[in-house]
Amino acid sequence: MDEFALIDRYFRRQTVTREDVALGIGDDAAIVVPRSGEQLVAAVDTLVAGRHFPDWFSAAEIGYRALAVNLSDLAAMGAEPRWALLALTLPEVAAAWLDDFSTGFLDLARKHRVALIGGDTTQGPLTISVTLLGVCERALTRAGAMVGDAIFVTGTLGDAALALALDADDDGESAGRLRAHFSRPEPRVAAGLALHDFAHAAIDVSDGLLGDLGHILRASKVGARIDGRCLPTSAAARALFTPERILTAAATGGDDYELLFTAPAQLEASIRDRLAGCDCPVTRIGTIVAGDAFELSGLDGVPMQPARTGFRHFAT
Amino acid sequence: MDEFALIDRYFRRQTVTREDVALGIGDDAAIVVPRSGEQLVAAVDTLVAGRHFPDWFSAAEIGYRALAVNLSDLAAMGAEPRWALLALTLPEVAAAWLDDFSTGFLDLARKHRVALIGGDTTQGPLTISVTLLGVCERALTRAGAMVGDAIFVTGTLGDAALALALDADDDGESAGRLRAHFSRPEPRVAAGLALHDFAHAAIDVSDGLLGDLGHILRASKVGARIDGRCLPTSAAARALFTPERILTAAATGGDDYELLFTAPAQLEASIRDRLAGCDCPVTRIGTIVAGDAFELSGLDGVPMQPARTGFRHFAT
Repeated sequence: MDEFALIDRYFRRQTVTREDVALGIGDDAAIVVPRSGEQLVAAVDTLVAGRHFPDWFSAAEIGYRALAVNLSDLAAMGAEPRWALLALTLPEVAAAWLDDFSTGFLDLARKHRVALIGGDTTQGPLTISVTLLGVCERALTRAGAMVGDAIFVTGTLGDAALALALDADDDGESAGRLRAHFSRPEPRVAAGLALHDFAHAAIDVSDGLLGDLGHILRASKVGARIDGRCLPTSAAARALFTPERILTAAATGGDDYELLFTAPAQLEASIRDRLAGCDCPVTRIGTIVAGDAFELSGLDGVPMQPARTGFRHFAT
Repeated sequence: MDEFALIDRYFRRQTVTREDVALGIGDDAAIVVPRSGEQLVAAVDTLVAGRHFPDWFSAAEIGYRALAVNLSDLAAMGAEPRWALLALTLPEVAAAWLDDFSTGFLDLARKHRVALIGGDTTQGPLTISVTLLGVCERALTRAGAMVGDAIFVTGTLGDAALALALDADDDGESAGRLRAHFSRPEPRVAAGLALHDFAHAAIDVSDGLLGDLGHILRASKVGARIDGRCLPTSAAARALFTPERILTAAATGGDDYELLFTAPAQLEASIRDRLAGCDCPVTRIGTIVAGDAFELSGLDGVPMQPARTGFRHFAT
């Protein structure tokens, strides 16, 4: 089987049909038709085997994740995802693996009405690079945070990092929930779209809360005070780990794919209402302050200094 | 140095500024603004070390090629390239390599006014995946070839394949020209745009003339007669190889990145004029015929059947 047959067989099974796709998989390039006046939003993320997912991930989980991390990027822009391109490098053509991988990818694509419009399949060490295109009316960037803004985060933090800290033979219900949070993160697409009307700045928490907050602070030229006692954590985490361990994971662990955003404090009730409408919990965790000050208070309310400030792919 | 600093240091040196880039490198996603009514064209191609370029390629040649193969895809659609995203997986952070790679990439981007708007840098086996976005008014697809159309190809064929057949110690002028054709293919962007007014169907010759012509024939549901004596070959090839060896390379060798297109035969003079205006030689090599017949005549004018019909990444 050659690469063309491959693409046909597994990826043409998608059931998303969009009228704005003028030409999909199968020519030199794909053609889509944005509506007049729409801004186009584009993000690319690569997953490398052994680095961005553990060995125990199923092919379906890898496929899901490859799209989910990009959906999370577009969610953080307040954008509506529409079209994806998949660059898939595989060591070999394994039918069962491709079947599972494409199912994980296409199921998530269907849920968010994303059409797979093109791709490239090559032979080599397992690497998956997804480009996701979408549109937005007004983009949420990292640069708009204002002094006095409240800082919010969706969902819970630290679960993905704690899933990796579990014993391999821990098969209890709480362990299962942490692992599911890590392997099937829920990109906050609807929440990102809803935040248009409220947020001044936004980012997704992929590298860890403090590292990603740092991006907002630098881009917006402001500081922040975060109350460690307010960080939202899950019941599953609390059932298995100490409060100190959970705080560290929530502050510095990566891969949670929640949204971190700032907005005027007086909008808190409206934000909570609106996000409840898309089934998305939200927690206020701190305040934007002037200058470049940054303070995280610990479980005792006393300022602390975490050792790690976020995941780095090429840490020296 | 972490990945963020990397992207800053090497890829922000681009000198292409486009007014339609609302947000470039450095946020969760990039934002661009197509003009009202423009169709968006998107292509992705991946280069894997040891598979899509030989060991002797310089980093600058790899960077050039990563963008050139995508430019060639957009050229074959008759599209205007505008914005690129680069997913770069590297075994290590090597400053000299990155400097060369980004120079090769950005020099070609500048030549075609393509802005690098985003990317992702990860650690792993060397893999480069570029997504190229552009726009077009009317796309050239593979599906429009009509019975009676003449078949044309730009430039010369077979040089890239013959470059790989050279002895490593052949350092003559002709050998240098063949190697340059292979390592720095000239994407036919201006020619593709000019073909709007003439061509019925188009593809770029990346996998070999016969393989890529096959895509047009299947998509257009037509057949073809090709005269092997008409295939355009270079003086460098003729100086070093036998006519039979050159014909095989021209018919089945990959990596030439010329445009193969069909158009009404009576437009030949106009096409020749227009492509001369963008410094692009063009040759008529055959005719589209009814049915699914395919015939290639050899150097003696007698129909032949080449053994290979095009490069396949996952040939079984």
